[in-house]
Amino acid sequence: MRSLALLAVLLAAPALAQPAVPEPVDSVDPMIGTGGEGHTFPGATAPFGMVQLSPDTDTSCEIRACYGHAAGYRYEDPTIQGFSHTHFSGAGHSDFGDLLVMPQAGSAVKLEPGDPKQPGSGYRSRFDHAHEQARPGYYAVTLSDSGIKAELTAGTRVGVHRYRFPAGQDAHLLIDLRSSLYNYPGKILWSGLHLRPDGTLTGFRETRGWAPGRKLYFAMRFSAPLADHAFVDRDEAIPYKGFQGPGRGSDALAEKLGKALEARLDFGRLAAPLEVKVALSGVDEDGAVANLVAEPGDFDAIRASTRAEWAAALGAVELDGPAPIRTSVYTALYHSLLAPSVWSDADGRYRGPDDQVHRADGYTFRSTFSLWDTFRAEHPLLTLIQPERTSSDVVRSLVDSQRFSPDHILPVWQFAGRETWTMIGYHAAPVIADAYLAGVRGFDANAALDAMVASATYAPYGGLGEYMKRGYVPIDKEPEAASKTVEYAYDDWSIARMARALGREDVAARFEKRAGNWRNSFDAKSGWLRARLSTGAFRTPFDPTAINYGSDYTEGNAWQYSWFVPQDQAGLFRLLGGDAKTVAKLDAMFDYDNSKLDYSHAEDIAGLIGQYIHGNEPSHHVAYLYVYAGAPWRAQERLAQIVGTQYKPTPDGLAGNDDLGQMSAWLVFTSLGFYPVAPGSNEFVIGRPFLDRAVLNLPNGRRFTILADGLSPTNRYVSTVTLNGRPLERTYLRDSEIRAGGELRFTMGPVANRAWGAGKGARPYSLSTSGPR
Amino acid sequence: MRSLALLAVLLAAPALAQPAVPEPVDSVDPMIGTGGEGHTFPGATAPFGMVQLSPDTDTSCEIRACYGHAAGYRYEDPTIQGFSHTHFSGAGHSDFGDLLVMPQAGSAVKLEPGDPKQPGSGYRSRFDHAHEQARPGYYAVTLSDSGIKAELTAGTRVGVHRYRFPAGQDAHLLIDLRSSLYNYPGKILWSGLHLRPDGTLTGFRETRGWAPGRKLYFAMRFSAPLADHAFVDRDEAIPYKGFQGPGRGSDALAEKLGKALEARLDFGRLAAPLEVKVALSGVDEDGAVANLVAEPGDFDAIRASTRAEWAAALGAVELDGPAPIRTSVYTALYHSLLAPSVWSDADGRYRGPDDQVHRADGYTFRSTFSLWDTFRAEHPLLTLIQPERTSSDVVRSLVDSQRFSPDHILPVWQFAGRETWTMIGYHAAPVIADAYLAGVRGFDANAALDAMVASATYAPYGGLGEYMKRGYVPIDKEPEAASKTVEYAYDDWSIARMARALGREDVAARFEKRAGNWRNSFDAKSGWLRARLSTGAFRTPFDPTAINYGSDYTEGNAWQYSWFVPQDQAGLFRLLGGDAKTVAKLDAMFDYDNSKLDYSHAEDIAGLIGQYIHGNEPSHHVAYLYVYAGAPWRAQERLAQIVGTQYKPTPDGLAGNDDLGQMSAWLVFTSLGFYPVAPGSNEFVIGRPFLDRAVLNLPNGRRFTILADGLSPTNRYVSTVTLNGRPLERTYLRDSEIRAGGELRFTMGPVANRAWGAGKGARPYSLSTSGPR
Repeated sequence: MRSLALLAVLLAAPALAQPAVPEPVDSVDPMIGTGGEGHTFPGATAPFGMVQLSPDTDTSCEIRACYGHAAGYRYEDPTIQGFSHTHFSGAGHSDFGDLLVMPQAGSAVKLEPGDPKQPGSGYRSRFDHAHEQARPGYYAVTLSDSGIKAELTAGTRVGVHRYRFPAGQDAHLLIDLRSSLYNYPGKILWSGLHLRPDGTLTGFRETRGWAPGRKLYFAMRFSAPLADHAFVDRDEAIPYKGFQGPGRGSDALAEKLGKALEARLDFGRLAAPLEVKVALSGVDEDGAVANLVAEPGDFDAIRASTRAEWAAALGAVELDGPAPIRTSVYTALYHSLLAPSVWSDADGRYRGPDDQVHRADGYTFRSTFSLWDTFRAEHPLLTLIQPERTSSDVVRSLVDSQRFSPDHILPVWQFAGRETWTMIGYHAAPVIADAYLAGVRGFDANAALDAMVASATYAPYGGLGEYMKRGYVPIDKEPEAASKTVEYAYDDWSIARMARALGREDVAARFEKRAGNWRNSFDAKSGWLRARLSTGAFRTPFDPTAINYGSDYTEGNAWQYSWFVPQDQAGLFRLLGGDAKTVAKLDAMFDYDNSKLDYSHAEDIAGLIGQYIHGNEPSHHVAYLYVYAGAPWRAQERLAQIVGTQYKPTPDGLAGNDDLGQMSAWLVFTSLGFYPVAPGSNEFVIGRPFLDRAVLNLPNGRRFTILADGLSPTNRYVSTVTLNGRPLERTYLRDSEIRAGGELRFTMGPVANRAWGAGKGARPYSLSTSGPR
Repeated sequence: MRSLALLAVLLAAPALAQPAVPEPVDSVDPMIGTGGEGHTFPGATAPFGMVQLSPDTDTSCEIRACYGHAAGYRYEDPTIQGFSHTHFSGAGHSDFGDLLVMPQAGSAVKLEPGDPKQPGSGYRSRFDHAHEQARPGYYAVTLSDSGIKAELTAGTRVGVHRYRFPAGQDAHLLIDLRSSLYNYPGKILWSGLHLRPDGTLTGFRETRGWAPGRKLYFAMRFSAPLADHAFVDRDEAIPYKGFQGPGRGSDALAEKLGKALEARLDFGRLAAPLEVKVALSGVDEDGAVANLVAEPGDFDAIRASTRAEWAAALGAVELDGPAPIRTSVYTALYHSLLAPSVWSDADGRYRGPDDQVHRADGYTFRSTFSLWDTFRAEHPLLTLIQPERTSSDVVRSLVDSQRFSPDHILPVWQFAGRETWTMIGYHAAPVIADAYLAGVRGFDANAALDAMVASATYAPYGGLGEYMKRGYVPIDKEPEAASKTVEYAYDDWSIARMARALGREDVAARFEKRAGNWRNSFDAKSGWLRARLSTGAFRTPFDPTAINYGSDYTEGNAWQYSWFVPQDQAGLFRLLGGDAKTVAKLDAMFDYDNSKLDYSHAEDIAGLIGQYIHGNEPSHHVAYLYVYAGAPWRAQERLAQIVGTQYKPTPDGLAGNDDLGQMSAWLVFTSLGFYPVAPGSNEFVIGRPFLDRAVLNLPNGRRFTILADGLSPTNRYVSTVTLNGRPLERTYLRDSEIRAGGELRFTMGPVANRAWGAGKGARPYSLSTSGPR
């Protein structure tokens, strides 16, 4: 994959004219989201790379304070603790931060990170943003306490460090295997360090973090020979020491095992910068060595090839527009291309959901599936711009995960091959259905459907037994029952869609019926989605503004969740009393006076516009619902409001957790002018563009151009739309129309066109009105 | 291997006449050594089986009290806690006791073992020896508290339980993954349970016991369907709980991970006995399932095939003599055939010293190498009676272990593929040399020699750097320096022997020189082996009776260690002043008045005859040294003294730890009339027989018969010896003479024949007198 992508870039390069604007790769600012609550990381990674080599400014957080350091780095922190090799991009919960490396200069090597408030108290160092640089695949910083210049780059399974030590001082590296993100006491189960005769340092760590019993292996090679080393166990209370191996009286061992290990590596005085190349593996230490060998080249070579990979990946979309929006959208595209990340070794082996080693035969196994977030826009975006390279791998990874899952269901929130049981639903189903219906192939579709059905019928999971019996999840049996009922019903619809396409009519009929289960939890009288008891009654007391963990809703309330019927918004709107009442309720949501509400107890609630909460996913499709109600112009206003307030090309430029690309994919689609409200319908609902011009360079070689004539802050309304020169009266695009290539031309104006899209026939797919199409 | 051995037995069976005496397999009493300090286990195992399924009477021991329960079972204990699947036979230190299963009857299932002093306080049960039976491959006991009859059998990689529950009571099994031998706090690092859709229960446990970070996987199948189950985590202080998986509100999960797991399995009321078949694997859970499938058959089938395997293995030696000695020696032979045990899976994969999975190509990987003990007689015995089936596997396992060792040296004390760094020396060297020089093939001899040299020259190990520099290990740099110096010198000699045979003259010369290093630690003035300082002076104060851990000697003192020059006893005796002074010193050792000595602080010191300590290995060759001093008759007296006092056909019938067969192999050889004093010389020193008749059924199809005419308690002296009818004047046999088949005939008498073997030319190999032969 890697070499083919690179080749494409190299072949394309001579034909490109000298650009007037920065290259896409130079328009990305990885610092966006590293402040505020974006939880992105600024370090070096390749597209979908296994390695995310990035600075950690603090890992010593207490339980609640961990949240802010979910990606290790916070823009406002004054010190760097070290550089570790694994990070999530925008997760709410966290883990990772594996294999922390910190360079040290001089004679005294410090073994504790020290207090950030007391400079010099440990190995951490101050830094400032003036001496820091972040680009796709590259990060550099000067550590002010030691004067060491640190540079990081990464390939698919390798990270490379380059350290320039002050002249005349001894060079050391400290590796702290105790360091980790969300490092609750007892998280580190076991770890090991091995110095091989050829000077390769290998090791592993096993943690009981977010993913229980996760194993990670590594291999490191150095550009200069080791002068000396020490492997030390910092466990202060070891009940079981075992017998002493070779090296008695010295810490220069070939092997050290324990729960609190550090390695001190001494290189003496160096004439040239020290390069450290590190490979990871989820399989074993030999796998890490093989991954290291599979990506040859020094720091500059890896940096150059990864830059070329990023240029190729970002080249999927050409964007013209003012620099701020261009930076925001290219960075969003960059953030959309980080997960699901590579998890199999170069030889195809990977550690699966059963903690056993399997081999991905003819594909690359991916993990880091934040599916409750990413089924919405992140996966449809990948399916559109990377159908072969990514989505087919994704589907195969999901289906093989189901095969090897102890519960035999598709991933819910998986990373490093392991299930975490975070969030709700079986949203791998719409991801697979959307990909298959969009023409993605390369997997056994019937086996995939079987895996989807297995997940949707596994009684022990999330109240599914009750759901299948009653048609809704009862809140006295299962928490977050209201959210589960509507999300299951949507997932069920996606299964029916795929079954219909495969001619599996029995499955289709069964799941089409389940797709209507959202009605069983909807209180038509009050107009709210509500949790029902097993008696059938709605639970009281009921407060549509309440947000609590373990309540009737998942990270949200009735205001957000009452809109979640992507498969049948028309059916919902009829229950609400028709278009006008629906538009009024949508307006009430956006215009809600939230000044007296306090949601600070709920970590993921950020980016509020009334009761619309852009910082979390349940709201993400809501602005587009005006289109389903015949008022696209109102959607255009709301989208301007959201883009204008929730995204900025600055470190605090994301309104909430990026959630492995979902927040960013929303911006990519929205800036192009359309959005996948109902993945599986294979329709994109038209909003309004935010770029003067955009071109999708599709993998089939075709180009789909989007033009926004007259776009300006005042020209915020869509006056007319043409597709390939012909007026487009409907308010959605079919994915086949995009894939065919062509031109979507918006004419923007200062006045709302209330006629366009108002008719019933113009509206996007809804099960009860459109049926199969 | 298994099926071939079985076939051989089946083919042989019809030709056998009805025996007048019990079959060898019925002469074995596995209870021998389960009392006293033998540390053997009474449970079920196949020859060299991976599974040792045996009752544990107590696992809740404190650190020092653990010693007595090194094999889980003590004959004098009143209760059984459960049946676990892994045990060492006779180890001094311990570990194992994996996967404890306990049946329970009735409605209330207990989750804690309870206090042995308070019957009914937990799931442990009382039992009595009248309702207990132990045979090779079979164990049965009635649990008096519940009335459940438990039977155990085992194949190579499987154990099978059969439980008869009292009529009308519900049947349950409790699996306690917290239970372990030498269960220091913090030993259990991680564990898991998986219930597969087909009803197979799989799981794993990772421990930081004797072998750090040891992983064991298992798979279990049941003859009756599971009615219900619960996986529970008994960890009372879990800092990191993680998210909840499917099965919320119930413990009937598909998966449970944690550090203190138990499984409750409910079968309801059963009409037939419940059979539980369990396979182990060091690789992964799928490996355990495959191992389960690889050995088909129910309890009775496995029991029968393992009985046939034992009959074949024990058939290597036919023994005629009075029942007590016959029972002792057949049981000793049985104990000699337990380790090194199978560690690779049925498909050849195994977890090696680097904790990575490798594949044994064309052989079966063995582990449980107690080499400091077993190089003496256990391995020479296996090389004699099982050269292909065992010793070639053993050598390949040792050499591959060196290849994958983090330190790239041969095993020291290895089990489950992992190094424990217990005891001293590189005694894999004489094991390999002795096997190669005895004609064992099937391995790359030059690669094996390279591995031996690598081990003998690895400076960080056990003071070897100093040893290579000075010719002795200085006690101020390294503990147990006196013992290390002499043991290294012997190992060096074995390397020289093998190098000479391979034509590697440079290696041979170098190590023949090192073979003389024992002289550098020998105080010729006092006649003692003593520890020297790096200044060259002997360390003072010096007490030849002192036994302490970390002292100048390894589990011994100058009395025992001053005799350790197996490669050059003649050289030693010259230093001692000649034959007469040597015999006097040997007599002084045996006749020493030890009534005022207290060695109770040293765990392994048992079986004292003066300063001769038969319960520990450094003394094992000493009685035979009279032969080297020209006084075979005196050896004959001492051997009668030892056999008569140190072995009994009773539970307390072993004088000390059996040490994975070494104590037993000593008896097998000694009872036949000869002993391998210097493995690598390929000579057996003649003592005296203790059986009327014995036949070695050699694997090459030849028979070597040993007859003891006139043997009786008073006829304790060897009057004459003939080999194949010709008088044998020398006091040793060559291994080639045994392998050729033939007849060794002793004529026993009441009076010592002081002439036989007195001449210099009659004596066994010594480097300085015999040179290479």
